[in-house]
Amino acid sequence: MNLPWLLQKENIARIEGNHILIGDRRLYPFERTFVTCKNVEEIAEALKAMVTQGGGPLQVALTTLRLISDSPLEEIKRSVAILSDARPINTTMRRTLASIVDNLEKYPLEERSNYLNRLIDSIEESYDSDYQAMGRFGSSLLRDGDIVLTTCFAEHTFTLSLLKAQEEGKRIKVMVPETRPYLQGSRLTAPSLAEVGIEVEVISDAMGAHFMERGEITHYMTACDVVAMDGTAANKVGSLANAIAANYYQIPYTIFALSPDTTLATGEGIVLEERDGSEILQVRGVATTLPTLKGRYPSFDKIEPKLITNIVTPRGIFAPSEVGEAYR
Amino acid sequence: MNLPWLLQKENIARIEGNHILIGDRRLYPFERTFVTCKNVEEIAEALKAMVTQGGGPLQVALTTLRLISDSPLEEIKRSVAILSDARPINTTMRRTLASIVDNLEKYPLEERSNYLNRLIDSIEESYDSDYQAMGRFGSSLLRDGDIVLTTCFAEHTFTLSLLKAQEEGKRIKVMVPETRPYLQGSRLTAPSLAEVGIEVEVISDAMGAHFMERGEITHYMTACDVVAMDGTAANKVGSLANAIAANYYQIPYTIFALSPDTTLATGEGIVLEERDGSEILQVRGVATTLPTLKGRYPSFDKIEPKLITNIVTPRGIFAPSEVGEAYR
Repeated sequence: MNLPWLLQKENIARIEGNHILIGDRRLYPFERTFVTCKNVEEIAEALKAMVTQGGGPLQVALTTLRLISDSPLEEIKRSVAILSDARPINTTMRRTLASIVDNLEKYPLEERSNYLNRLIDSIEESYDSDYQAMGRFGSSLLRDGDIVLTTCFAEHTFTLSLLKAQEEGKRIKVMVPETRPYLQGSRLTAPSLAEVGIEVEVISDAMGAHFMERGEITHYMTACDVVAMDGTAANKVGSLANAIAANYYQIPYTIFALSPDTTLATGEGIVLEERDGSEILQVRGVATTLPTLKGRYPSFDKIEPKLITNIVTPRGIFAPSEVGEAYR
Repeated sequence: MNLPWLLQKENIARIEGNHILIGDRRLYPFERTFVTCKNVEEIAEALKAMVTQGGGPLQVALTTLRLISDSPLEEIKRSVAILSDARPINTTMRRTLASIVDNLEKYPLEERSNYLNRLIDSIEESYDSDYQAMGRFGSSLLRDGDIVLTTCFAEHTFTLSLLKAQEEGKRIKVMVPETRPYLQGSRLTAPSLAEVGIEVEVISDAMGAHFMERGEITHYMTACDVVAMDGTAANKVGSLANAIAANYYQIPYTIFALSPDTTLATGEGIVLEERDGSEILQVRGVATTLPTLKGRYPSFDKIEPKLITNIVTPRGIFAPSEVGEAYR
């Protein structure tokens, strides 16, 4: 089962010489190019500038730690702090990097570099196996003939769910909202799913409820950036509007949560990024209105547990109210 | 109280020589240009191509009838049929034109041209007075400090409501979803409201629910393309998602209905246009994804009565269930 080009590890981030190459999702699918970074500051800038997103920043951070594995512990700690701050919503990255530093401190100086590389190997293997497990769980929720609405780019877990469902002979169609302003839906999700043989239709971000009302959507599925222990989730802005509509039309909403955040008892603690409002006033560099006007760009929605039907995790499929128990 | 440039009659449609000039809303606010049409076929093409929209097609049609007022009745009938078919959702235009033809048939040949021009004068005056009345009703629903979400371009009635509220000293902010694919929100609504001194913020089509969840929206207001006698409305796609979210967060949803359609007993009879899906795959001519992908573009939502709080009409403000009684 081949992942689409965009989700293959070497196309997310890789080391070449003394540099990190990050697959530039801002230009995909029109160009398959990479941003070259020579230090952690440049890498953090690339993450802030949305060169990659979703699960990309974690992969970039792990690859960065491989590159600097010979550096003094203080330098590694400094790099981890800079990378974690680049995407505040991404608590999976923050927690993974913090645990690496904790583990690293226990090792004597001369073994650290080797240990760090083995640790990252095992973390990557663990994520890969989590992806596969969540793909199996996700596919078990899909029925032949389903029309799935998504939001943004739900990456490995959603894609593997669809591929496994397809392998089992289930015919699935996916409706993909374009996901303004950066068009992750039309640029990343739709071409990637089409590449691996899934039927897709691109719609605007306003159309989820429309197709639900017409009975043309049978399941709503997204990734999430973070899930708290009370089952509150955060994901790309637009996820909430579709969740409310799915609730209204009694359509199940399934989210994929790679690592529910045990440090967040409730959704209260979730920090939502608000980006520069001017980013809303353009599409791929083309102005959508007068430059004198004000835009707003809250990047993420907080979704309350009662709007969520299933939370797919590496440990199984849970109702939002069960996540705290499963992860305590 | 001055209307913004875009809503001034001569900028919607006017006669110059033997031609009709239609204000080109596809290029606004970047250019203030007009499409010149020399016959009814070209005018219908312009309407289909979205040169103007909302209340624009009716104004274009009335101006067209003025231009051809000397033509034989058969030619006028043929023109009316072509214009009505150009925008099936616009039943106000269809009904207004049909009633003109009905009236015209009663007049002797030699008086027809004069009568037609006087009839159109009176229709235009009547719409102007309806706009003013609906603006007064709309402003009565607004409170000082309101933050109003809208969808698409709600034109005269909404703009006049805001202007009257402003005149009464109420401070109102409007959040304007960009309204993909043609960006009526960011291109038409936001610059027009800003032009007349209303505070606006441009957001993506996915963000209505987000700001409601944060308590930042206090009223949702849109125009509508048609309202049936059971209070079902149709308006630009995206109106429904915001209506469902407003309902979820118990925020009032007010629609402006210039002419509830007495020929439609229920929403069942509303015909929704589905436009070419490829229109979704671009923004102002710039591709948003690969040309090999499939887009979908259902242009209008049907909104059931229980999602609507107020229907503002020339006859007053009604609950959806009261419209049938008020207009029978």
